[in-house]
Amino acid sequence: MAETMKAAVLHAIEDMRIDEVPKPQITAPDEVLLRITSVGICGSDIHFLKHGRIGNIILEKPTIMGHESAGEVVEVGSAVTTLKPGDLVAIEPGKTCRRCEFCKSGHYNLCRDVVFLAAPPVDGAFCEYLVWPEDFVFKMPEGMTADEGGMMEPLSVGLHAVRLAGVRGGDSVAVLGAGPIGLTAMMSARAHGATTVIVTDLVQPRLDNARRMGATHVVNVGECDPVEAILDLTAGRGVDAALDCVGSELTIQQALRVACNRGAVQLVGNPQELMPQFPVFEIINRELTVRGTFRYVNCYPPAIALAAAGAVDVKSMVTHHFPLDETVEAMRWVDANKDKVIKAVIHP
Amino acid sequence: MAETMKAAVLHAIEDMRIDEVPKPQITAPDEVLLRITSVGICGSDIHFLKHGRIGNIILEKPTIMGHESAGEVVEVGSAVTTLKPGDLVAIEPGKTCRRCEFCKSGHYNLCRDVVFLAAPPVDGAFCEYLVWPEDFVFKMPEGMTADEGGMMEPLSVGLHAVRLAGVRGGDSVAVLGAGPIGLTAMMSARAHGATTVIVTDLVQPRLDNARRMGATHVVNVGECDPVEAILDLTAGRGVDAALDCVGSELTIQQALRVACNRGAVQLVGNPQELMPQFPVFEIINRELTVRGTFRYVNCYPPAIALAAAGAVDVKSMVTHHFPLDETVEAMRWVDANKDKVIKAVIHP
Amino acid sequence: MAETMKAAVLHAIEDMRIDEVPKPQITAPDEVLLRITSVGICGSDIHFLKHGRIGNIILEKPTIMGHESAGEVVEVGSAVTTLKPGDLVAIEPGKTCRRCEFCKSGHYNLCRDVVFLAAPPVDGAFCEYLVWPEDFVFKMPEGMTADEGGMMEPLSVGLHAVRLAGVRGGDSVAVLGAGPIGLTAMMSARAHGATTVIVTDLVQPRLDNARRMGATHVVNVGECDPVEAILDLTAGRGVDAALDCVGSELTIQQALRVACNRGAVQLVGNPQELMPQFPVFEIINRELTVRGTFRYVNCYPPAIALAAAGAVDVKSMVTHHFPLDETVEAMRWVDANKDKVIKAVIHP
Amino acid sequence: MAETMKAAVLHAIEDMRIDEVPKPQITAPDEVLLRITSVGICGSDIHFLKHGRIGNIILEKPTIMGHESAGEVVEVGSAVTTLKPGDLVAIEPGKTCRRCEFCKSGHYNLCRDVVFLAAPPVDGAFCEYLVWPEDFVFKMPEGMTADEGGMMEPLSVGLHAVRLAGVRGGDSVAVLGAGPIGLTAMMSARAHGATTVIVTDLVQPRLDNARRMGATHVVNVGECDPVEAILDLTAGRGVDAALDCVGSELTIQQALRVACNRGAVQLVGNPQELMPQFPVFEIINRELTVRGTFRYVNCYPPAIALAAAGAVDVKSMVTHHFPLDETVEAMRWVDANKDKVIKAVIHP
Repeated sequence: MAETMKAAVLHAIEDMRIDEVPKPQITAPDEVLLRITSVGICGSDIHFLKHGRIGNIILEKPTIMGHESAGEVVEVGSAVTTLKPGDLVAIEPGKTCRRCEFCKSGHYNLCRDVVFLAAPPVDGAFCEYLVWPEDFVFKMPEGMTADEGGMMEPLSVGLHAVRLAGVRGGDSVAVLGAGPIGLTAMMSARAHGATTVIVTDLVQPRLDNARRMGATHVVNVGECDPVEAILDLTAGRGVDAALDCVGSELTIQQALRVACNRGAVQLVGNPQELMPQFPVFEIINRELTVRGTFRYVNCYPPAIALAAAGAVDVKSMVTHHFPLDETVEAMRWVDANKDKVIKAVIHP
Repeated sequence: MAETMKAAVLHAIEDMRIDEVPKPQITAPDEVLLRITSVGICGSDIHFLKHGRIGNIILEKPTIMGHESAGEVVEVGSAVTTLKPGDLVAIEPGKTCRRCEFCKSGHYNLCRDVVFLAAPPVDGAFCEYLVWPEDFVFKMPEGMTADEGGMMEPLSVGLHAVRLAGVRGGDSVAVLGAGPIGLTAMMSARAHGATTVIVTDLVQPRLDNARRMGATHVVNVGECDPVEAILDLTAGRGVDAALDCVGSELTIQQALRVACNRGAVQLVGNPQELMPQFPVFEIINRELTVRGTFRYVNCYPPAIALAAAGAVDVKSMVTHHFPLDETVEAMRWVDANKDKVIKAVIHP
Repeated sequence: MAETMKAAVLHAIEDMRIDEVPKPQITAPDEVLLRITSVGICGSDIHFLKHGRIGNIILEKPTIMGHESAGEVVEVGSAVTTLKPGDLVAIEPGKTCRRCEFCKSGHYNLCRDVVFLAAPPVDGAFCEYLVWPEDFVFKMPEGMTADEGGMMEPLSVGLHAVRLAGVRGGDSVAVLGAGPIGLTAMMSARAHGATTVIVTDLVQPRLDNARRMGATHVVNVGECDPVEAILDLTAGRGVDAALDCVGSELTIQQALRVACNRGAVQLVGNPQELMPQFPVFEIINRELTVRGTFRYVNCYPPAIALAAAGAVDVKSMVTHHFPLDETVEAMRWVDANKDKVIKAVIHP
Repeated sequence: MAETMKAAVLHAIEDMRIDEVPKPQITAPDEVLLRITSVGICGSDIHFLKHGRIGNIILEKPTIMGHESAGEVVEVGSAVTTLKPGDLVAIEPGKTCRRCEFCKSGHYNLCRDVVFLAAPPVDGAFCEYLVWPEDFVFKMPEGMTADEGGMMEPLSVGLHAVRLAGVRGGDSVAVLGAGPIGLTAMMSARAHGATTVIVTDLVQPRLDNARRMGATHVVNVGECDPVEAILDLTAGRGVDAALDCVGSELTIQQALRVACNRGAVQLVGNPQELMPQFPVFEIINRELTVRGTFRYVNCYPPAIALAAAGAVDVKSMVTHHFPLDETVEAMRWVDANKDKVIKAVIHP
């Protein structure tokens, strides 16, 4: 009889259950079997719980949620050389085709055949075991924890954004939004030598987090106009890079207005399909570079190195903990307490 | 008594006159005195004639129009080493402060203190003589003409766009709009090795020009959906670079949709201030790079080299000729005959 | 009984034989079986014939030579979607691990686990059939020939060098050496808009080839000092990019001296291990960028597009033809007649 | 009668005198008059004292030495807007032509007409007053000192090297040589997020400085083979960037060997003209990028920002202080005590 494991399975909108499902097994020589020990709850998990879809990705069959995961190596395939049982690892949640134009040119995040954890119908990591290819599994250095391992996922998003924006030493950066991604973007900008990093948000406790974790300035958008505030803080010049980590019409407009001439505007937050008031004139007249950020690529190794070196503080990101049995309660609690939580993690 | 010269001076909306104005004189050692012999009529000249302003640049005192100019060196300042009387030259129309952040970092096109020909209150080149700094005046190679010299200006716009978009050998490129700038962008893309260059427009004679001057494919947007057509021509993948040379809401939307994943969208045409239906989702989901194009920088030398080598065909761009006395008539004729003319030039 | 095929197998130094060997078979779903119809003879094939090794790659068991190959698809694996029997294809000779840091970051040419045709002990393409993964096999467009398909390999070397050197429109480029790689580098530079492309060599017929195939200037190094000649042709400034396609001490020194300040020096030819007179001062004082070129990466698609568009003339490269049975004779003849031949191809 | 000031003038080899020389005066509207308060002693100053030349720059008339300078604004020209009397400023020592290809493309460090402090016959800053253009004079933020201002010069060298090498978060970097430039390169690499920064030197106290100022690892080359040590510390992969801050044959060889495949080798230290044992093969086979570093460009603003933010520790660099009258004694003492001193500064 096949072995089973516990998993938090989303059956339909608002219908998540702790099920017994088959325990996965290694079937290819480059795979490893992992025992999952920490998985962050992401906004996208909650979105699927409440709406059953994100864009074109639709829940059509019961699917395990969770993709910000870390765990312990239990077993390795015959060709595996870099991992061994007992290793604490972070798991990069998208495995790719390795053959398409994007995979071969170093942009595998745009592979159309990606298999991504918790993107239905692909099962995720709110469960006890996972089988995954060696090259998307990264050993955590001595002294780091599984919770930090799981945080490599949101850190990779922020890090990828900062890399695309080309942030470097002495730069000024605005980060619009102090949610988990805004925080990782802010810390990544600081780690790359940005000396002025301004974070904006509407919620003061989130700004307090940002300040404590490294922002040089915070702006509460309920108290003043963030565009004016950022221009003031940069003597009217604007910032070298503006990172929108919200995705709202307002913050995208702000990003386009606070970037300096020839500055970088990095779009990280997920916006609506069409934006009704887009100040396209700014892009042309000031020769801005507006780039999108889709997940991350080749970011786990530097993310781990930065965290291990203490250049980013992911430990402070994990604020709440829940067992696997309480996954759905945890998700609802997080959804209702966005101001209090940075990241809640599930411990299967 | 000071010498005078003839000039086509815009006094107010729809009020352009041929005046006698003071002939300019060399006042700094790095300046040259030029006799203007060919000046293209640009859409912006016509816009000032009809509306008296473009954005924040407003006609408030009588101003000479014209900035796509070439001529002959008459006299050189004491420090000039690269030019001598008799040289045929192309004139880059913006001289910059040389001291600001943008000038010093190689992006002088964004210098806020630029002095740009025919941007009121700065006088332009629809006149007999001009004094300009040596380093913004470029000797044309043997065998080239003044008309070609004037065309270095619109060619620089297209070339700068293609450089920013990073076009290289084997690329596919869409150019939206077959006006003069669309044509120079198309030719610049071809010169950089793009092997599929698709031009779209509504006006068939303009598309015929594009085809004759090097486009590999043309699409009449009155006859089919250009997005579908371009995706068909690229087997569904989209183009490496999409250059909007119109500035309309529709063409900007098309550019964002026909660029391939991680493709470049280069905004060249002047759009309205706010765009009401901007598909921002495309930028993020497909990690596009959207850049603005503001004039050009360091483009005259390569533009001249490409024209001299026959890699771009600027000779075909000059389709009509007028004397200085008929400048305003020429501008009105061009405005009324956009389908027939590529470029009309004034010969002072 | 297993099927067999004919192959030109190198058993030892100067010992090449036409053997009957097992015909390869598809064993993975992404593989295709190819009938080889044209394979260029490369200098490395001749080097193995004469010396049995290149650097650390040593002939230790009988190995089929040949890696500049094209052919026809005979059979496709179950997962193959882009190819079908009867397609004429070019074969990229290195298949890679797809998992290492270099494969995942778009630099698979540096994959340490590459399996490269005719690099002992890996068998090459001087034979009748080959099985190869779909994504390293590229369909040639209508109207192109197998000989052109084989030439995509040396073209990719030149194209990769030109891409790394960042050649763009209006640039000046020096190509040192007019062998097959020098010719493809020259043509690639021309295709990217370089308007001054100077080729140097000692052998006049090779320079005549270069001139005929697109070089704007040729310099016979037996008749004048190439450094002086190139500086003269660029008014003392030097070239934007200098590509050494020889690998000798002398040509590398020349490349470092003819590059302009901040210019690119691209090392393509294989040099000796240690170079005794390296003008390192030039690199620092003039802030040069010296880069190596190791094979090519993601170059087959643009190479094919450029050839199909007529932007490079690979047809002229194939000057001599031999049947498979005469492979060793052909290699010896080529070795003895370097001045007469650009490329000889074997037709299995 | 013209005012005079004291200056340390080098008359000939080993002949430096404290002379009364004319006090400079503002002659152009964009100039500022500065009172010099801190000037670092550079190895080049000592080299001129001992040898009377560096490369082609030869002492042919009495010249004031010193170029790592800071001071206080005394008077400003009529067009100056960013500075006012009393401001503490750092002085970028090279003013450029603003008109050549290099100035206009953002690489003014390669301007052939640069006027550089203390490069004979241009007078330097071992004196009481200096007149310099506003845009090469940078206000230091509140709380910083003149000594820190002077250190912006060596910091800019290290920062420029790190920028050219493209160091980013999570990278591993080797810095060969723990002199003042090695230290600023090391600190700049750290500030850009490099998480492994290995410094090598022969002198233990210099390595101790490096360790204290931020290096993650130091290697005493008298105790072990630095190539092996660096490869060991990077698990055999090599470093993303290797910065040679010595200029010796040995360290350049090491840099080429410890860089990872496709890694950056940045040459910062001044080497001899020709290098007799250059491992050019490494560049090609591993597709390295070897770049020179000539002074710096656009680095003062980020250098000041990094120092003000505490991301680099330039305060620790200034270890010894001397009055202007003892300039030559200070230079000789520094030359004799390289192991004890990081930087000695002159206070006019």
